[in-house]
Amino acid sequence: MDADIAAKLGLPALDKGWVWLVGAGPGDPGLITALGLQALAQADVILFDALVDETLLTLSDAEKIYAGKRAGVRSCKQDEISDLLVTLAKEGKRVLRLKGGDPFVFGRGGEEAQALARAGVNFRIVPGITAGIGGLAYAGIPVTHRDTNHAVTFITGHGVDGKLTRLDWAAVSRGAPTLVLYMARRFAGEIAEALLAAGRKPDEPCAIVCNAARDNQQVIVTTLDRLGAAAETTEPLSIIVIGENVRLAKDLSWLAPAP
Amino acid sequence: MDADIAAKLGLPALDKGWVWLVGAGPGDPGLITALGLQALAQADVILFDALVDETLLTLSDAEKIYAGKRAGVRSCKQDEISDLLVTLAKEGKRVLRLKGGDPFVFGRGGEEAQALARAGVNFRIVPGITAGIGGLAYAGIPVTHRDTNHAVTFITGHGVDGKLTRLDWAAVSRGAPTLVLYMARRFAGEIAEALLAAGRKPDEPCAIVCNAARDNQQVIVTTLDRLGAAAETTEPLSIIVIGENVRLAKDLSWLAPAP
Repeated sequence: MDADIAAKLGLPALDKGWVWLVGAGPGDPGLITALGLQALAQADVILFDALVDETLLTLSDAEKIYAGKRAGVRSCKQDEISDLLVTLAKEGKRVLRLKGGDPFVFGRGGEEAQALARAGVNFRIVPGITAGIGGLAYAGIPVTHRDTNHAVTFITGHGVDGKLTRLDWAAVSRGAPTLVLYMARRFAGEIAEALLAAGRKPDEPCAIVCNAARDNQQVIVTTLDRLGAAAETTEPLSIIVIGENVRLAKDLSWLAPAP
Repeated sequence: MDADIAAKLGLPALDKGWVWLVGAGPGDPGLITALGLQALAQADVILFDALVDETLLTLSDAEKIYAGKRAGVRSCKQDEISDLLVTLAKEGKRVLRLKGGDPFVFGRGGEEAQALARAGVNFRIVPGITAGIGGLAYAGIPVTHRDTNHAVTFITGHGVDGKLTRLDWAAVSRGAPTLVLYMARRFAGEIAEALLAAGRKPDEPCAIVCNAARDNQQVIVTTLDRLGAAAETTEPLSIIVIGENVRLAKDLSWLAPAP
């Protein structure tokens, strides 16, 4: 972080014994915030998730600890991550907890913050761009638009028990014209059925945005009756949006493929 | 923007004749993204909204045009803003359209992008932190939390016609445990009544976050049956959250008042 810019923005310092819970955004490393850059420059140690773009880590000389949950790589349980944050802070380290997206949007940042609060560790929350908004923007899909919706519902497709989220799907269906689903690939078909049963139209446009805001971003446009089948063919890291907003992508797909 | 960091992050240049639609976040200028800093450094002209923290403008030598809508200051209509963006881009300027929050969350960025697309002007969307997520985080309220909600609905309290948004409020009420209202201060009482009629509990916790993520941030915690009265006493620039998440603020209010 440029010291002059940091001073003009009035950025606080990441002090010894503090933890900053920072959202890294949905993919494009350019979506890191100024506060996030400050934390990268000042941290002694970084705990990062699988979804964090590794380009960001190259900006920092800190010790880096992988705390992700991908198959085949050392994985941490949530309690272990929280305990490690507390331990490192109590050792007097400047700790950066770097999470994909936003820490407070289906990111379990609240649990980590609670653990820090319980342990008496000072912390700061640095929000990040969440995939359900910023990732869709990279697909040319505004999550709200005057002509299409005055409400949008964000849903996680499965709970911590690994099952489909228990929600009143009929109410969800009628409550907001636009629905954004996180971690819903596995249950996309079931969710689509529940929405169709509640009266949503089979030809309602849907999009699956895989690897949003990354170099390998892929956008699959489909319809609600085909959503389940379409989701089966896609990669795990995807955001699903259901609603008329998807039609806007035709005009607003600003992220042209490289020439 | 530090050139070395910009290169490492692979930030694109804001080129002549292009418009970048950039979200400045909810208040704290430290929530600007790296792409936003790049745009500030490279723009020839900036059209900015009332909600943009003016500290950000001090980072740029560009011509600055106020395009806000506050009483007593020159205000622009939406069409005029879109036309001006097109005109400036066609003059070959590097144009930064700097908006509060996120351009695609109740920010009319979709309309501006459509105008640019129709006019054949190249543009890029740079998402920002939206107040309904990041502003709440500055009040210590996670917008989602494992124990409280797997769904959250974002709603704008009034449409472009200045009336209460037409929604199926009973479905909204049952569809998501947590509701976040933008621009809803005026209709907060009516919305609360509709939710109570739909079965939400009178003592359900609510918070009104005024001037979120700013030095003058104020958090009013109340209950659903008192929301309308509480909203009347607050400032216009507020975000309302209804749901059990509000209880988390007691432990997670990390933004201590200055000593």
